[in-house]
Amino acid sequence: MISVKEAKNIILNSIQNFGIEEIPFIESVGRVLREDILADRDFPPFNRVSMDGIAIDFIPFKNGQRDFKIEGIQAAGSEQITLENSENCIEVMTGAVLPNNANTVIRYEDVTIKNGIATINIDEIKDAQNVHPKGKDRKIGDLLIKQNTKISAAEIGVLATVGKSLVKVAKQAKVMIVSTGDELVGVDEIPLAHQIRRSNVFTLVSLLERLQIPSETAHITDDKPILKQKIETYLKGYDVLLFSGAVSKGKFDFLPQVFEELGVEKLFHKITQRPGKPFWFGLKEFSNTDKHPGNQYKKNTIVFGFPGNPISTFVNCLAYFYPWYYKSVGVEVEEETAILAEDVIFKSNLTYFLQVKLSYKFGHLVATPITGNGSGDLVSLVSADAFIQLPNDKSEFESGEVFPLIRYR
Amino acid sequence: MISVKEAKNIILNSIQNFGIEEIPFIESVGRVLREDILADRDFPPFNRVSMDGIAIDFIPFKNGQRDFKIEGIQAAGSEQITLENSENCIEVMTGAVLPNNANTVIRYEDVTIKNGIATINIDEIKDAQNVHPKGKDRKIGDLLIKQNTKISAAEIGVLATVGKSLVKVAKQAKVMIVSTGDELVGVDEIPLAHQIRRSNVFTLVSLLERLQIPSETAHITDDKPILKQKIETYLKGYDVLLFSGAVSKGKFDFLPQVFEELGVEKLFHKITQRPGKPFWFGLKEFSNTDKHPGNQYKKNTIVFGFPGNPISTFVNCLAYFYPWYYKSVGVEVEEETAILAEDVIFKSNLTYFLQVKLSYKFGHLVATPITGNGSGDLVSLVSADAFIQLPNDKSEFESGEVFPLIRYR
Repeated sequence: MISVKEAKNIILNSIQNFGIEEIPFIESVGRVLREDILADRDFPPFNRVSMDGIAIDFIPFKNGQRDFKIEGIQAAGSEQITLENSENCIEVMTGAVLPNNANTVIRYEDVTIKNGIATINIDEIKDAQNVHPKGKDRKIGDLLIKQNTKISAAEIGVLATVGKSLVKVAKQAKVMIVSTGDELVGVDEIPLAHQIRRSNVFTLVSLLERLQIPSETAHITDDKPILKQKIETYLKGYDVLLFSGAVSKGKFDFLPQVFEELGVEKLFHKITQRPGKPFWFGLKEFSNTDKHPGNQYKKNTIVFGFPGNPISTFVNCLAYFYPWYYKSVGVEVEEETAILAEDVIFKSNLTYFLQVKLSYKFGHLVATPITGNGSGDLVSLVSADAFIQLPNDKSEFESGEVFPLIRYR
Repeated sequence: MISVKEAKNIILNSIQNFGIEEIPFIESVGRVLREDILADRDFPPFNRVSMDGIAIDFIPFKNGQRDFKIEGIQAAGSEQITLENSENCIEVMTGAVLPNNANTVIRYEDVTIKNGIATINIDEIKDAQNVHPKGKDRKIGDLLIKQNTKISAAEIGVLATVGKSLVKVAKQAKVMIVSTGDELVGVDEIPLAHQIRRSNVFTLVSLLERLQIPSETAHITDDKPILKQKIETYLKGYDVLLFSGAVSKGKFDFLPQVFEELGVEKLFHKITQRPGKPFWFGLKEFSNTDKHPGNQYKKNTIVFGFPGNPISTFVNCLAYFYPWYYKSVGVEVEEETAILAEDVIFKSNLTYFLQVKLSYKFGHLVATPITGNGSGDLVSLVSADAFIQLPNDKSEFESGEVFPLIRYR
């Protein structure tokens, strides 16, 4: 039995690099960038008009001139034209190139146009106003998005702008999610009195989907030879196996034995926490040629053996698989914290992952405990948003104290 | 020109009901539930063993008996068996039905088994311990998930458990995202000196994807007859049109005119805010038979005409389209707030959507301003996580003050 901290360290020392793949940028939201994105030109790429109006040379205005003959129109998307006479003006549109010889833009709101003459109605005008100068935001070659950034809608716009129609991202692990337990029947089936439907595998599929990791699922009956044969195949065919159930002390909890017989190295079994104590974690080493010929990565298959109770599986996936994944793909995640809204007493030497409902009060993140009926009470997850992690070295936790937060919404 | 508050009210009074569709539960993450989910049986559905160990009748233990002959094994997934002799015991596994005539479970850790006899090694045992009684969490018919809940991994587990392989969710609007502006070229093209690549439509696609709304995109050249003809088709074929650009004062900003000529009712044009001021919002009414024969919903096509600057489009989608969508599908979203980390001066009568980087300090959500170069500086979105909304009735905002927050990560 090891502590939550030790378990997390072991898991973070077992990260895997699954390599790189190139995908269409528009499908890359939620994925992790594996290349630096540089400016392909200056931003903006030209002196850009930032208001609809007229462009002038500032000198005549400064010298008192207010009426400017309109020489032409510079539309967005048109080649740059030239202000031929510095006492004239050109109508310009937002997004257009500033005409040659012009340097200042006055918006339509401050101008009257009549018979081809634009009269400026205000006196407060600054040299070069309403012009977004070439290269002001970024210079060609500047770093726009750092490698290892998790791509969001904000990055999508930048990728489009620099023409990255294909983008290099961290390849996802190939994941198999396995349920065990003879009491389980399919979602479409009517369970008998002593049966229940499978649910943990689907919860795990959804939790992995949040990370853009596709996964496959399987169910194996509580029969040791069958478990052994199937898991042997999965160890070879996948990068990560997630199990739910069969890791505790029951007579049919064959997984730890099967893992041992198949040469999966146990890195730990059981953590001093509630829920989710009997979590089994290990890895199977393969030589490169065994598994991924020609690929320098993906040597190990990582095995997460989560306990079968729904809340146990859920919290362990969030508390251990998520950090393992983020570190594997190179993303740094800031730890969130929340303020406990009520006193909590938990007398035990275990770290307590307490379900909470979150609310926002004056910039404070407040966590109100949700009382469930233990790790089997799947429905209690619906009323909560997150877990807070109460340390195992004390048993009384006061309203107002701050603890680490693990959100799932 | 109207205020942010008025604009939001108008938009929230223009919500649309797009009806209901039934989809596989495993694809429903992020969608909005349109039916109450009830317990199909008690939770747990039987007196459920919650520890691996032995099940006994408590009375003999209370009377001092410590050695219990093992009569049999009750595995998870097996039909309930009966403890024939109340002085004996049955080995039981987590998830199994508690055997008939047994009422208390002692975990293996507290028992020694030898020659078919289980000896209990502790004296502190409670009647009915380690049994999760039938119906303790929920009773058959109880409400498990309320209609209008946004489905997450937590709900997926419950849907699986009650056998909802198909689930009723709010149907999504059919959305077309249109860019205008002759300066725009495709992501795969090399822009000329006066051109830039399209990016806003892809940003909008990604922002809508976060809401699980699929969308289509189009680009229309700045040519009024072509705009009019295409938009007429889109108004009939889609529930929502999002535009980026061509709503300001430019000579080629044809959209407001085109909307008017096509009978799209203008609900407002221009909001006292920065960025994103020239936002145009309206709707086109259709009679049911015009548009969706046999469908009582979807009478109107809603038109969001966002200004073309990247930050303007981005913040308006978050600040107006998102709330419109959430209210349309019936989801209540709690307003988040954050604490300003630095003094900010913004002298103007406009509401200021300020880009910020978020951090978590002792349960406080702290917002540090990110200085960009105005609404054209697309790349500045990459360094920020959110906007805070600074009201228009003052111009000095102090470090430590709390303001509404709009996140995009």
